[in-house]
Amino acid sequence: MVHPLGVALPIVQAPMAGSQGSALALAVTRAGGLGSLPAALLTVPQLRAELEAIRGASVRPVNVNFFCHQIPPPDEERERRWRATLAPYYRELDLDPAAIPEAAARVPFNAETATVLAEFEPPVVSFHFGLPDDNLLARVRSWGATILSSATTVAEARWLERRGVDVIIAQGVEAGGHRGMFLGDDLTTQVGTLALVRQVVGAVRVPVVAARGIADAEGVRAALALGAVAAQVGTAFLRCPEATTSAVHRAALAGAGAEHTALTNLFTGRPARGVVNRIIRELGAIHPAAPAFPLAATAMAPLRARAERVGSADFSPLWCGQNTSGCRAEPAGLVVRGLARVGETT
Amino acid sequence: MVHPLGVALPIVQAPMAGSQGSALALAVTRAGGLGSLPAALLTVPQLRAELEAIRGASVRPVNVNFFCHQIPPPDEERERRWRATLAPYYRELDLDPAAIPEAAARVPFNAETATVLAEFEPPVVSFHFGLPDDNLLARVRSWGATILSSATTVAEARWLERRGVDVIIAQGVEAGGHRGMFLGDDLTTQVGTLALVRQVVGAVRVPVVAARGIADAEGVRAALALGAVAAQVGTAFLRCPEATTSAVHRAALAGAGAEHTALTNLFTGRPARGVVNRIIRELGAIHPAAPAFPLAATAMAPLRARAERVGSADFSPLWCGQNTSGCRAEPAGLVVRGLARVGETT
Repeated sequence: MVHPLGVALPIVQAPMAGSQGSALALAVTRAGGLGSLPAALLTVPQLRAELEAIRGASVRPVNVNFFCHQIPPPDEERERRWRATLAPYYRELDLDPAAIPEAAARVPFNAETATVLAEFEPPVVSFHFGLPDDNLLARVRSWGATILSSATTVAEARWLERRGVDVIIAQGVEAGGHRGMFLGDDLTTQVGTLALVRQVVGAVRVPVVAARGIADAEGVRAALALGAVAAQVGTAFLRCPEATTSAVHRAALAGAGAEHTALTNLFTGRPARGVVNRIIRELGAIHPAAPAFPLAATAMAPLRARAERVGSADFSPLWCGQNTSGCRAEPAGLVVRGLARVGETT
Repeated sequence: MVHPLGVALPIVQAPMAGSQGSALALAVTRAGGLGSLPAALLTVPQLRAELEAIRGASVRPVNVNFFCHQIPPPDEERERRWRATLAPYYRELDLDPAAIPEAAARVPFNAETATVLAEFEPPVVSFHFGLPDDNLLARVRSWGATILSSATTVAEARWLERRGVDVIIAQGVEAGGHRGMFLGDDLTTQVGTLALVRQVVGAVRVPVVAARGIADAEGVRAALALGAVAAQVGTAFLRCPEATTSAVHRAALAGAGAEHTALTNLFTGRPARGVVNRIIRELGAIHPAAPAFPLAATAMAPLRARAERVGSADFSPLWCGQNTSGCRAEPAGLVVRGLARVGETT
């Protein structure tokens, strides 16, 4: 039987914007899994360059992943409160709070990116935070792409199935990085992978990928036992040489502190899981003044840049799932083969 | 090979204080799993009566479960704030806030319960919220009982192993009822079952039971794939005729609202997962004024009693895990056999 994702091994590498590009995606695809290119932080020329790199290097599918959030209207009062909250840190790091540059905000999938994408016709396209509007989605469908999106609740899975998604990624609360939640913002609705996957498999007819908390072959086998067609794995790839994970992020993942992660809105405005660091400890993981996604990132960026320059992760988003046990500094091909070992034999 | 829990099937019924007694435990044990008697809410005479019922009915092991929290010192100021928070509800339900009776507080395992227990020498004894002190633990060991306790983090699992626990229950965040956390109270440390079980299995040498989010045979198979020796299941038993689950609780579990649970401290003072109901929606799941465990229960009790009398679950703890898909009104023996179906054949 042909796997619904066209892969030899039931492993999907989770797209991790900011920590990887085409190199990791290609390494995973070469090893027999489904590599993913995260496009959320790419400019249009960068996206084109990455897609060219993939076209030049692989005949097997690589998934291209986009965010499809709404850009919120500016909220000056909230931004003012957020900058006031961060002001003591600006003083400590000797930064000018009046000279915060416009940061490159995460841009949702739009007509321009759809046009670039159409030049390359990638066979697998995935979305996070729901789906783009019907017209944009129809353009992606036009070249026969397999379309994936993430569900964090049964209700989201049903919604995605009604919209015609081909494969649903059931994203458990263990996941590092941004929660894909899009039908609500109540974190108490967010469910563990084990519970979520079984319920989603029971609620929809399309294939389901089990996402997160999976870091080894036993985890993959458990995902398949739950009825998933593949396991999506992110954190285990973050220390691969093919990833672009920063030095402070790699150090945090390798340390004992990686056992302690939290869902935080401090870095972008949306809840995302990362290693608890100084700013999370001091402000709390969820702060009411943090501007709506993706705007919270702007005022945090100068703090992060200044701190990282001296090797400090105090203000960096250290995205990380709840299971770092598979996160080693080894080539992605080895990680894929390790994950698939037991999966192959069942 | 003899199973470390002495069972024919790798199913442990989670003790659920307030929702079951010996009848459910015996039904599960008869079906080949490990039934559990929750003792946290029992008086000493009630405990003795339940242990007599078990001794009279079963030659196979039944697990007896105790809480081992510390009773906190009274905090008048916090109690005052808590009662002020609840005052509008007292007015609405026409209850006298000056006449709140002393509720039967959850009592930790102590010398008196140890003495009763020694009369019966149950072969399996489990603890929640850590372990009792060394003397009490030695008394339980004296008759050769297999001792279990819950870990919600890798650090807790290591701590329990150092204290000589025989089997560790890795309790994922999906679990209904009280979180077993005892080395800290930071909810961000609480991990999904899939991630937790693999990490605990890797960190300790004693057998591990995978707890929660498991509601069917595929879930059990996944738990075994993760390296667990058994799956602990709670919610799937709550609607069994052998359970003592209240009518409003049963109705909540059967409704669509059961998809939405939260960790709340409103009912007892400790975070426990239940279906989101009116009091959680209106006060928020975690309230800073709620007195320390188990004292928050006292002022909530009259509201609950009055509301339940008219069929309302507005003030009731509707304990429930994140996967109610296996929760049907059918005999416990059927539930056990359904859970074990695939587990047996792998």
